[in-house]
Amino acid sequence: MSKVRVHNLAISLDGYSAGLEVTVDKPIGDAAELFAYFDGRVIWGVDRIADPIRADHLFTSGWSQGIGVEIMGRRKFGPQSGPWVDDDDWIGWWGSEPPFRTPVVVLTHYEREPLVFENGTVFHFLNAPAAEALDFARSLADGDVRLGGGPSSVREFLQADLVDFMHLVTVPAVIGTGVSIWEGCADLQKQFDVESVTTGSGLTHQFWNRTRD
Amino acid sequence: MSKVRVHNLAISLDGYSAGLEVTVDKPIGDAAELFAYFDGRVIWGVDRIADPIRADHLFTSGWSQGIGVEIMGRRKFGPQSGPWVDDDDWIGWWGSEPPFRTPVVVLTHYEREPLVFENGTVFHFLNAPAAEALDFARSLADGDVRLGGGPSSVREFLQADLVDFMHLVTVPAVIGTGVSIWEGCADLQKQFDVESVTTGSGLTHQFWNRTRD
Repeated sequence: MSKVRVHNLAISLDGYSAGLEVTVDKPIGDAAELFAYFDGRVIWGVDRIADPIRADHLFTSGWSQGIGVEIMGRRKFGPQSGPWVDDDDWIGWWGSEPPFRTPVVVLTHYEREPLVFENGTVFHFLNAPAAEALDFARSLADGDVRLGGGPSSVREFLQADLVDFMHLVTVPAVIGTGVSIWEGCADLQKQFDVESVTTGSGLTHQFWNRTRD
Repeated sequence: MSKVRVHNLAISLDGYSAGLEVTVDKPIGDAAELFAYFDGRVIWGVDRIADPIRADHLFTSGWSQGIGVEIMGRRKFGPQSGPWVDDDDWIGWWGSEPPFRTPVVVLTHYEREPLVFENGTVFHFLNAPAAEALDFARSLADGDVRLGGGPSSVREFLQADLVDFMHLVTVPAVIGTGVSIWEGCADLQKQFDVESVTTGSGLTHQFWNRTRD
């Protein structure tokens, strides 16, 4: 069975992965500090950068390896909420070249027609709970399934015990308020083997692998 | 310009990367301890294993990213030395499925016809110094160039100042004797930015990036 994987999910020292309010100008709310390190993130291979190849790059390059499909929350797709009435021309934050290049399932209460891009990215809009969304995602493509965030959608899959692997990144920053994957997840670590590695940049990368009995 | 990269080169605490004598039964001489960790090495993507995905796997998966061609020493290709007379049916250690899937330049004083495999691997046999071999390798394919080892051929490229990146792995083992990339390379670290990261397995991964003035 293909794995369900989370990659490159940044978490502040106080446990937040996104700000509370998302607008067109602030795609991750007030949590921009978290993504300062993302400038050096490598998602399609360490050869894609002219920069030195450092540990952070090799870790973040796991993002695309063997992924057949992504599942994301609506908030990652756009700042809107409610029906699409006034925003039906919104095609996501990424313009005409979304970085995914695979099918992407966007979880939303307001379904709409799929959005197809030339580079292989296809956004499907689905109103369904986690397990059902996962079945649908697997029906779209072979390979592993990436949970792309934001944090509330990752948390929904954690609570449904559907996550096999998480690459989390502890960023040495305090955000103060925001959205967390940890809410309602006390003792989660007991279901996982957790390896922590700190790199030269000061980031701590955690690799959570679900232990199946 | 494409980079010249070394990946996953294991080094013992006393500085050796291979044993002195290589035979058909001992492809890396008496240095087998060094490669105990290779069981978990991942070269074509972390999705290729059913095992947990750990830091070592993400690091070793850099091996194939954006590589267009490999250059290796003859000793990595086979245990023979001298003319191919009695060994002209030798096709390498890997049988009919060499893991490379790209052109590979084998450095040897004894040239022979290329060996072509269905999976994209083609071994070319070349008698040339490092710089010339690099030009030839780049003429065969786009992308970065991987120096595949063994240690003496990596050392030749280091001494010719042709290496842009090295991922070295310090293995907590003492070999006692062997072949080293460090011989004649005193002060090499002054030409590189070096990042060291230790993982949960006890391996220390080093990322050497050439600093160009």
